[in-house]
Amino acid sequence: MSKGTVFVLSGPAGSGKSTVRQRLMEKGLNFHYSVSDTTRKPRKGEQDGVDYGFVTKEQFEEGIKNNRYYEFANYTGEYYGTPVSQLTPYIEAGVNVILEIEVNGAMQVKEKDKNAVLVMLLPPSYSALEDRLRGRGTETEEKIQKRLARAKEEIELFDKYDYFLINEDGQIDECVKQLQMIAETQQYKTKNNPDFPIKFLNN
Amino acid sequence: MSKGTVFVLSGPAGSGKSTVRQRLMEKGLNFHYSVSDTTRKPRKGEQDGVDYGFVTKEQFEEGIKNNRYYEFANYTGEYYGTPVSQLTPYIEAGVNVILEIEVNGAMQVKEKDKNAVLVMLLPPSYSALEDRLRGRGTETEEKIQKRLARAKEEIELFDKYDYFLINEDGQIDECVKQLQMIAETQQYKTKNNPDFPIKFLNN
Repeated sequence: MSKGTVFVLSGPAGSGKSTVRQRLMEKGLNFHYSVSDTTRKPRKGEQDGVDYGFVTKEQFEEGIKNNRYYEFANYTGEYYGTPVSQLTPYIEAGVNVILEIEVNGAMQVKEKDKNAVLVMLLPPSYSALEDRLRGRGTETEEKIQKRLARAKEEIELFDKYDYFLINEDGQIDECVKQLQMIAETQQYKTKNNPDFPIKFLNN
Repeated sequence: MSKGTVFVLSGPAGSGKSTVRQRLMEKGLNFHYSVSDTTRKPRKGEQDGVDYGFVTKEQFEEGIKNNRYYEFANYTGEYYGTPVSQLTPYIEAGVNVILEIEVNGAMQVKEKDKNAVLVMLLPPSYSALEDRLRGRGTETEEKIQKRLARAKEEIELFDKYDYFLINEDGQIDECVKQLQMIAETQQYKTKNNPDFPIKFLNN
């Protein structure tokens, strides 16, 4: 049996990555969504074990020491990380895993697994991102400026990603379709099937 | 405007690559089929300029001297090659080009254009290939043995290809769909859009 593939979905706040990931999961494909651990406080409506595993700073640092995180990053003073238990057993069982993580974590994943597929989700333009962040009407100007600065840093890693998708306004299902196509085509990559020639010749 | 992508389709005799390529072309996508030149004699039903450009040995060698071939190979004593005129003007105009060529030519294309996408089409197994070649009932045992030996050589280059597709009996339209998906996802590759971050930030 062939192993599962690791898919990383990254993108600035306002790119719509949670929605894209949720809709992809709803399609009932062979995907496990990797629930990250974080030390930040749960937001309204977020459930422990569903949206994140909510842990204390001490627990997280204990986890780092014991190699319990496949990747982790400290972002605006809080830890975020992928527990090994959310990834390795699934991949070994041939199940694809989707991670919704930020760029630093994504770089760690690519370093550990060269077959991981990194996808960056972006709004059509920087000014569109600005409009979306302001349109939410829920965040302070300071926070908006921070998010915009962060987006600039993220796009600098554009060429470290394998694919990028543009989330045009009102076209989120297009992105889901494109991501699904990207996922489906991975099985046809020769590098994901190194044993095929031997099987071919012996059958 | 972004450039077109070069798609190379290779596969042993009996893999069904001509049919897959023809059905892909019928879908009316943004594809030009590159008509190869050859020095071999036309087979029944083959048209000059449609199936191949039929040229003399002298014409072909003159073309080689004048760099008129993007790639070429000598296969069973006959020349086969892709005229530059079948490829470069289309790519520059943003049109994708599909080449149906053998493995040596494919290696030359990849060397010249690292963004070229190499796809190997294969029957499900070596024994299935043997059955298909014998099933045609049109070829001598000697020719069948040659083709089988050639297929073994070709599969040795499996890992130089980007993708592979299995043409299961009676499932040729599945292969066409898969090839179409592979073609569509190329536009989402970051390496095919190196200017995107600048455009993003300036808009």
